[in-house]
Amino acid sequence: MRLTLHSDLAFRVMLFLAAAGENGGTIPQIAAAYRISEDHLRKVAHELVRLGLIDSTRGRSGGLRLGPRARELSIGAILRLTETDFALVECLGNQPERCVIAGHCGLQRIFGEALKALFEVLDRYTLADVVSGSGKLRDLLEMDGPIPPAGE
Amino acid sequence: MRLTLHSDLAFRVMLFLAAAGENGGTIPQIAAAYRISEDHLRKVAHELVRLGLIDSTRGRSGGLRLGPRARELSIGAILRLTETDFALVECLGNQPERCVIAGHCGLQRIFGEALKALFEVLDRYTLADVVSGSGKLRDLLEMDGPIPPAGE
Repeated sequence: MRLTLHSDLAFRVMLFLAAAGENGGTIPQIAAAYRISEDHLRKVAHELVRLGLIDSTRGRSGGLRLGPRARELSIGAILRLTETDFALVECLGNQPERCVIAGHCGLQRIFGEALKALFEVLDRYTLADVVSGSGKLRDLLEMDGPIPPAGE
Repeated sequence: MRLTLHSDLAFRVMLFLAAAGENGGTIPQIAAAYRISEDHLRKVAHELVRLGLIDSTRGRSGGLRLGPRARELSIGAILRLTETDFALVECLGNQPERCVIAGHCGLQRIFGEALKALFEVLDRYTLADVVSGSGKLRDLLEMDGPIPPAGE
């Protein structure tokens, strides 16, 4: 039971940018900080720009910055955007008819209720909560400069 | 975010056997009822026997039956046995050190809390709850004979 690697990396990008504040960051910086491939990260960032979760600007002071949407939305709402498949079991997905007892099996309701409980927790937090007191996070991500307000 | 196919099929086998009661069932019967491969199901059943969740007997009245353990345990406890990886994000797994900010990132705590909420729901139910009023379930699984008490 895992999120897709795409969602996992998407959160790392947004966390970096939340901790970086107005300074923002570039793909090479973020890739170096997490020691992951630039290519993979580029695809993830592209999708985050498309979703309005991060902003990309060109030029001398260009780079990536957290978008207003990522500051406003909860972790749960962000996850609903980055992760497309929440069907813990097949019958919660798009093709429930593939299991012969779908619709008549109590597991469907129980797993649905469990997923709801999971999101109720994720909906209580924002990226600002995740990076609050982010001094150590900024050290680990090798960021220089003054610490900006969390999540801005 | 999905359970492994192994867990998904494991629950289908146990559901079948919970609905079948003392009559139990065989791999060919269960495979035919769900229209899935016998080979795949055989591996799943083998693992369930190993975990003590189902019993396998040989001979004329032989076959598979739900084990006492599967009747006593909650859906959450059963899932903890069949699913080995609950690391929604990498840092909740066995190799947290692979992310440079693991241990200093608020997401780890938040996803941990969300997973706990998910299991709190799953821990409230048993297979008996899932198959209660299982007449329709028995029809769909093409079971004959008298309806046994749910989950027994």
